[in-house]
Amino acid sequence: MKTQIAIVGAGPAGLLLGHLLRAEGLEVVIVERASADYVLGRIRAGVLERTTTDLMDRLGLGGRMHREGLPHDGFNLADGERLIRIDINALTGRQVMVYGQTELTRDLMDAADERGLRIIYNAADVALHGLDGDAPYLTFVEDSAARRIDAQFICGCDGFHGAARAAIPASAACAYQKVYPFGWLGILADVPPCDHELIYANHERGFALASMRSETRSRYYIQVPLDEKVADWPDDRLWDELAVRLGPEAGGRITRGPALEKSIAPLRSFVFETMRHGRLLLAGDSAHIVPPTGAKGLNLAASDVRYLSEALAGYFRRRDDGAITGYSGRALARIWQAERFSWQLTRLMHRFPNNDAFDRRMQMADLDHIASSPAAQTAIAENYVGLPL
Amino acid sequence: MKTQIAIVGAGPAGLLLGHLLRAEGLEVVIVERASADYVLGRIRAGVLERTTTDLMDRLGLGGRMHREGLPHDGFNLADGERLIRIDINALTGRQVMVYGQTELTRDLMDAADERGLRIIYNAADVALHGLDGDAPYLTFVEDSAARRIDAQFICGCDGFHGAARAAIPASAACAYQKVYPFGWLGILADVPPCDHELIYANHERGFALASMRSETRSRYYIQVPLDEKVADWPDDRLWDELAVRLGPEAGGRITRGPALEKSIAPLRSFVFETMRHGRLLLAGDSAHIVPPTGAKGLNLAASDVRYLSEALAGYFRRRDDGAITGYSGRALARIWQAERFSWQLTRLMHRFPNNDAFDRRMQMADLDHIASSPAAQTAIAENYVGLPL
Repeated sequence: MKTQIAIVGAGPAGLLLGHLLRAEGLEVVIVERASADYVLGRIRAGVLERTTTDLMDRLGLGGRMHREGLPHDGFNLADGERLIRIDINALTGRQVMVYGQTELTRDLMDAADERGLRIIYNAADVALHGLDGDAPYLTFVEDSAARRIDAQFICGCDGFHGAARAAIPASAACAYQKVYPFGWLGILADVPPCDHELIYANHERGFALASMRSETRSRYYIQVPLDEKVADWPDDRLWDELAVRLGPEAGGRITRGPALEKSIAPLRSFVFETMRHGRLLLAGDSAHIVPPTGAKGLNLAASDVRYLSEALAGYFRRRDDGAITGYSGRALARIWQAERFSWQLTRLMHRFPNNDAFDRRMQMADLDHIASSPAAQTAIAENYVGLPL
Repeated sequence: MKTQIAIVGAGPAGLLLGHLLRAEGLEVVIVERASADYVLGRIRAGVLERTTTDLMDRLGLGGRMHREGLPHDGFNLADGERLIRIDINALTGRQVMVYGQTELTRDLMDAADERGLRIIYNAADVALHGLDGDAPYLTFVEDSAARRIDAQFICGCDGFHGAARAAIPASAACAYQKVYPFGWLGILADVPPCDHELIYANHERGFALASMRSETRSRYYIQVPLDEKVADWPDDRLWDELAVRLGPEAGGRITRGPALEKSIAPLRSFVFETMRHGRLLLAGDSAHIVPPTGAKGLNLAASDVRYLSEALAGYFRRRDDGAITGYSGRALARIWQAERFSWQLTRLMHRFPNNDAFDRRMQMADLDHIASSPAAQTAIAENYVGLPL
């Protein structure tokens, strides 16, 4: 099979990119290792920046998002006693949209056929070839048959553990990484959220987050040691812990219910510096990971694919090589800022095993400063709603 | 001897406090371990907040400071390549004043006699007694003779290593401390400064600071390992290193000259939480230390003694015990914010031995963020000029 652009991975990065390229009239095929149901079953982020919702609108696919999503004017930082509200709309003139990654992915999948976006699911043993020349190709196995797709460019949207980044020789890039000494234990439940906005809480027992997918579906997290087991956290224990960490006010408003999903995810900061190697272009989690504090992961993938679709459109319209070679630097400038924001908010809100009493007081002083300084609140809000493209 | 208030220490904290109390008509005696010349010989901070210059003006002692001091509208952060100017006057409507601690101390000493502020220098073996009752007293040795001063309150302004804080039982307080894994090697020279404003530089070889005491006297610093010796840094080596760390622009404008003084100081964050124990009240370095990044040490001492003079005036005017018991909490709220600011600026600008490549990129991303966000600049400027009292 031949196409102009082959995309590896049908998560939100690959799907958004595919739709953006189709909207430019380009030929695209997406190859996905898993099934559509598996992709939709992954529970992930749920807070969209305006830059992300704008992309959905530009594609004409934002209808359900605007009907079912929850626009938020602010969020809260908690320090065990009080809530510090960051009024992002008043401070920046922008809102964010609570709409689960699963829902966004479904909207993009549902529109694929009618937009001529071909997706091959259950593709095993995906491998990338010929990246250094001008005739790269993918090989994979579909229904036990060996397949090959020849393309002019391959886009790696296959996540942190995917084949795309692994195809770039180590000597051609720099990898930056920080692994945090804790994870997030998450619970999804069909209960109304304890607050209409998100609450990020720094409690002396550890971080907690109250969030939601809708007005009837809540998503909560607590910081746990990396060696913790989900089996050690029956629902009641988890609800009890959330009630303590979120503080008397918000914690007292929690509605409990059986877990639809419960899992522990590690936290990592990661940047792979280069996002282009020959004819391979990376986007989203394949090139970088942020800790979930601040909800930047999906939004970074969206800004990557916006830059990338512009670069590819420039190439195919005007044979503009500069757009292709400039992609990595352009995307990374925004990525480093999101990495910084996610790292700072993670550091501010979590209990680190090697933090001493002075460090703890510094966290409290930082929260006091934020509570008292509109300038500090603005600096946070600007990053939370998403820096300009 | 009897007095209303005995102050231990004739550094800027003790002298400012003494003058403020004299201006309220109170009886004060200051007892100082060292000679006046020794006190004046200590090279210390040189950037005064408005809150500090206001105190000098209120005492009618700001004349020489306004004639000889240099009002600054901003300062610079450097990242090895560019200068990021923080226009503190435009962002906050306030300036800071460059005027050496030595000069301020001299002004306060020179005015002591005419204001009836008695200072006993060369007092050996100063000891504090009876702090838990209402008749505390000091003992010391003057010219080989044992002396005693009975007072209603004792104020400890005798610095980090002084007797006052040591007189408070450990069980009555909490101490918070962070010792940084490097020091500052400083050089004082009679040469014009390389820039009319301060430059704090984060270079991959380590931090550097270009500052000044006047238009003809410069003060520079570089970060060095704690085990470094001054003897390892002949003037030429130090000037060479400064030229590299301050970057091509500012580094190229350095005027070299022989060192008037050269020394290495360790960096420490320290807060002693309580600043009152019975009839003993602490102010300045006796209760807290900040790393010098951000120039908060002397200014914190000034805000402490302003709060403390108000508390003591309230007590003697209206027997208001609440003013005395409230002093510690009032002062500490501002101190924790200055500790936070000094710690963050130290962390942002220095090379830490255990920082990895990711941490380094976070510092660079933080500087990029500051360079691009007026809100982030405002948050820094507000703290640099001094938070409201």
